Amino acid sequence: MRLHPRTQAAKESIFPKMSALAARLGAVNLGQGFPSTPPPAFLLEAVGRALGRYDQYAPPAGLPLLREALAEEFGVEPEGVVVTSGATEALYVLLQSLVGPGDEVVVLEPFFDVYLPDAFLAGAEARLVRLDLGEEGFRLDLKALEGAVTERTRALLLNAPMNPTGLVFHEEELKAVAELARRKGLFLISDEVYDELYYTPSPPPRLKDLAPERTFTVGSAGKRLEATGYRVGWIVGPKEYMGTLAGMRQWTSFSAPSPLQAGVAEALRVARREGFYEALREGYRRRRDLLYEGLKALGLKAFLPQGTYFLMAELPGWEAFRLLERARVALIPGEAFYREDPPQGLFRFAFCKKEEELELALERLGAVVNSQA
Amino acid sequence: MRLHPRTQAAKESIFPKMSALAARLGAVNLGQGFPSTPPPAFLLEAVGRALGRYDQYAPPAGLPLLREALAEEFGVEPEGVVVTSGATEALYVLLQSLVGPGDEVVVLEPFFDVYLPDAFLAGAEARLVRLDLGEEGFRLDLKALEGAVTERTRALLLNAPMNPTGLVFHEEELKAVAELARRKGLFLISDEVYDELYYTPSPPPRLKDLAPERTFTVGSAGKRLEATGYRVGWIVGPKEYMGTLAGMRQWTSFSAPSPLQAGVAEALRVARREGFYEALREGYRRRRDLLYEGLKALGLKAFLPQGTYFLMAELPGWEAFRLLERARVALIPGEAFYREDPPQGLFRFAFCKKEEELELALERLGAVVNSQA
Repeated sequence: MRLHPRTQAAKESIFPKMSALAARLGAVNLGQGFPSTPPPAFLLEAVGRALGRYDQYAPPAGLPLLREALAEEFGVEPEGVVVTSGATEALYVLLQSLVGPGDEVVVLEPFFDVYLPDAFLAGAEARLVRLDLGEEGFRLDLKALEGAVTERTRALLLNAPMNPTGLVFHEEELKAVAELARRKGLFLISDEVYDELYYTPSPPPRLKDLAPERTFTVGSAGKRLEATGYRVGWIVGPKEYMGTLAGMRQWTSFSAPSPLQAGVAEALRVARREGFYEALREGYRRRRDLLYEGLKALGLKAFLPQGTYFLMAELPGWEAFRLLERARVALIPGEAFYREDPPQGLFRFAFCKKEEELELALERLGAVVNSQA
Repeated sequence: MRLHPRTQAAKESIFPKMSALAARLGAVNLGQGFPSTPPPAFLLEAVGRALGRYDQYAPPAGLPLLREALAEEFGVEPEGVVVTSGATEALYVLLQSLVGPGDEVVVLEPFFDVYLPDAFLAGAEARLVRLDLGEEGFRLDLKALEGAVTERTRALLLNAPMNPTGLVFHEEELKAVAELARRKGLFLISDEVYDELYYTPSPPPRLKDLAPERTFTVGSAGKRLEATGYRVGWIVGPKEYMGTLAGMRQWTSFSAPSPLQAGVAEALRVARREGFYEALREGYRRRRDLLYEGLKALGLKAFLPQGTYFLMAELPGWEAFRLLERARVALIPGEAFYREDPPQGLFRFAFCKKEEELELALERLGAVVNSQA
């Protein structure tokens, strides 16, 4: 008895694998993108209060109080919001709902690792548009993007701010994307799980403000509120499609966890009111700079991110598992974000970790990177 | 721009729809199967203790401490357990992993409403085997089951104890099912979310004990621990397949909610040690008898369930929405569990509700059912 061939999508993601190896080897884990400190107390307390009160099934579209909180955040009506079991489910349900066999979805490369299996499991083909990588870092080539769109393209998928590159797209770039989508009749999937993690003077522009009729914005409490294990994500999109998306997500996990939905609803309001995101950005900016400067001081080429808690840098000649073993620092190798021919020696560093961890990682890397031992 | 045709599976399930209507009309809700009392204090406390400690991503296969607790429960190794975001995701992932276009999965009718969309979304066909319904209630016709298996059949899906009928299959029946599966080379999916809710002298036999090499057992903390909103379910199955199932479930919701996994791990041990399930069954047996006797006293035909917290009864000539409006009692109509030609006037009553609610429902039904007004 054999499993269905579509289970070829099941290969273990490198993220949990590196985390497990890092733990076993006592390595500093700058691999998987989860904070090494607990979520804010106001979230823990809000969830604590929800226990015993929100314990049974939520509606598949989400608890009304969470849909309302998100509607306020995004300036839409609650009917324009569907709550999911993390952004992972949001993306899965969107791909299942928008594309199928014979369809194409355009994805930027380097990509977050769920996009390709999501397209594959929907039976669709992912057409990749590789970002240019020059001395100044990564850059979206709008001509290449347009060139990737064919008769069969149904959707463009962007991650903005972008994991793993740390890019924040300019409004002009997004306008061009929106215009392209409008001209070609495409849906837009905008994965904005890092929407509050930016180091630019103003918040990143949102595709949904430029093409509200066709944009599905994906977000996550896990990233905003430092609780990646809470599995509360969302899709914000055109109202006429959201009932169907709620109907689709009821078959994947029925509803997101009720007490965590209720806690997040309260915490989103507290976070906004009390300047939590400003403090979060400030803390991450400091750690970003610490890591960036540290890598430069080691003579390494690093690309300063404008958003997310990831930074890309080059460790020429190194391979992730050898680095883990030798330096006891876990990083995600560039190849995890490319389908083929990845740039050599490129690594993603997660800096959502304690400053001591970043310093220890720099120290350990310093001891090995120039020795090549 | 149109959504993909597979979104025809998105039609709103009747369960949340009836719950919403019931709330709006102030009706007694014996429709959707969730308890109207909070989960046990030991679960709430265990989850409370997990907050601030288990907040980040769990591995896709589940937190090790939960896999270990479940391995003990089921007498398997932890590698034989994959944790999911509720039994809903467990079933979805199993259908995706076992069947595809051209394949068939045999499902008993009446069925729980996720099975058909799960098969459809996997591209497979559900072949239905209708239970006999006689004076004595529902009965599985093993000849009909065997007759439904074709060259294209890849899996049999059983719900045991069975929602909505309340059937507990006898060991002889399950032996015949296991023998059939072995002879035809089929996988067995055994949805056992009601495994601790039985009114027979001994626990229901498990298919996995009869055909361990081919059986995937699905379960849920939501049903066992009275917390349907916690989204912690599991699959227990042959070790050689479980890595792949974990790999597949990472794309649907990545991992189940971490603090709820940790809380459930502790609560499963407390529940077993302190006789929680015995007390749960005793409470449900009392409510089952109250409802069953009450319906009989109204002159209605009711079928005494041997498991689950559901009871099927006939209200000849009634339709669910008229009943809701006239009697202000929400029930799930039989047609929700049949693909076509449902038995007329058959309804599912959920008795996981307070005794006062059951009594009020009986009183309200009594006022209308024999008037037909």
